[in-house]
Amino acid sequence: MSKIEICFSPRLYPVYEEPDAIVVVVDVFRATSTICGALGSGAKSVIPVETIEEAKAYKDKGYLVGGERNVMRVDFADFGNTPSDYSPDKVKDQDIVISTTNGTRAIEIAKNCYSLVIGSFSNLSAVANYCLAEQKNVLVLCSGWRDRFNIEDTLFGGALADILKTEGNYSVLSDSVQVTLSMWHEAKADVGKYIERSEHYVRLKQHNLLEVARYCLQTDTEHVLPIYDKETKRLTDLNRNR
Amino acid sequence: MSKIEICFSPRLYPVYEEPDAIVVVVDVFRATSTICGALGSGAKSVIPVETIEEAKAYKDKGYLVGGERNVMRVDFADFGNTPSDYSPDKVKDQDIVISTTNGTRAIEIAKNCYSLVIGSFSNLSAVANYCLAEQKNVLVLCSGWRDRFNIEDTLFGGALADILKTEGNYSVLSDSVQVTLSMWHEAKADVGKYIERSEHYVRLKQHNLLEVARYCLQTDTEHVLPIYDKETKRLTDLNRNR
Repeated sequence: MSKIEICFSPRLYPVYEEPDAIVVVVDVFRATSTICGALGSGAKSVIPVETIEEAKAYKDKGYLVGGERNVMRVDFADFGNTPSDYSPDKVKDQDIVISTTNGTRAIEIAKNCYSLVIGSFSNLSAVANYCLAEQKNVLVLCSGWRDRFNIEDTLFGGALADILKTEGNYSVLSDSVQVTLSMWHEAKADVGKYIERSEHYVRLKQHNLLEVARYCLQTDTEHVLPIYDKETKRLTDLNRNR
Repeated sequence: MSKIEICFSPRLYPVYEEPDAIVVVVDVFRATSTICGALGSGAKSVIPVETIEEAKAYKDKGYLVGGERNVMRVDFADFGNTPSDYSPDKVKDQDIVISTTNGTRAIEIAKNCYSLVIGSFSNLSAVANYCLAEQKNVLVLCSGWRDRFNIEDTLFGGALADILKTEGNYSVLSDSVQVTLSMWHEAKADVGKYIERSEHYVRLKQHNLLEVARYCLQTDTEHVLPIYDKETKRLTDLNRNR
């Protein structure tokens, strides 16, 4: 029997780390929703980089770059951290570099696990199907906000745990997973309403990004499964090559 | 307006640290319940120490020592990590040294804050009254289990937040506090039933410590407010000297 576990902050990752697990990195608002959007629009790959300096170096080499810090687009970037920025006419067949406040850091931290995939509400079923097929232990790594717990990433963990428990007989016994399941049961009838309370939702609202926030809460708008390649340090869509 | 925040793991403390806040260290199962029990039984002070070696050194100097690692009493210790071990006939007017798996470590980490107090269900009202009188920001520091999130410490945070919100107009807007409040609302009608799901409850059950677990969930069995003195590195009962 496999189990699902959830880690509420990148800073806690060493405590939950399991080399043989699938790590699902989630940053609902907005990095992992954006990565799914870019690959869904036909980008060849997404290259996640941790620092603005790395992103700028790629930009200088001619790459298209998405960059965000503290909700705002970085000045030299071609895209911000919003899925719809990455439209097919701009990104199809391109390698896109992305650096964000929280999400790309979480990828960097977990990149040595068995397999690292990108999760968001927009590709929830794709992630669940991958886990169910692999039958490995699953660790959801919430990107959080500056290492703090956040509701939206945690809620994604609850949604995934609910599927894996129901369809895959996954064990959901850890304290953290049990709490995420309770959250999901409370939220699932109206996720948008539930999320209105989250700090980052309020932050996005202040930046006139409510429409984006709502988009990021829609389930299964993309069929992509972004998976990290340790050799090339890129995310590609595993489902596209199937 | 003051706010209450909750930190789910000692490892996250640097992220939530606020020098001017009251830090409430909680380890429901069982260190902070035990500390309240010892002071409630009339111990003059409790000296929390992080390592078994420090505890042994105190023992060699003639102190009474409580020591626990991984649920079990440490071999040289006079007491385990169970409140009823510390009966008045044994501890009255004594300075008691305590070292436990998680709780005493959390105290060590947070000892430089404005004031550090010990919280457990057994002294919930005493902690709430202290916070309401001080009107400072409050940070609940969950001891967790080996730096992992746990349900019982988090639930104490929800219970405290509920009182501070209702009686003190405290802000409870952070994502983590909102989740603890939801947990508390779900649990409060039957805390024992809710906690049955927790990993550490199961662990205590395996060690025939269910009765202790139930005791640790009772509210307001003690009127003590253990507060840490930075000079003497001891916890004393603030309420006794009032």
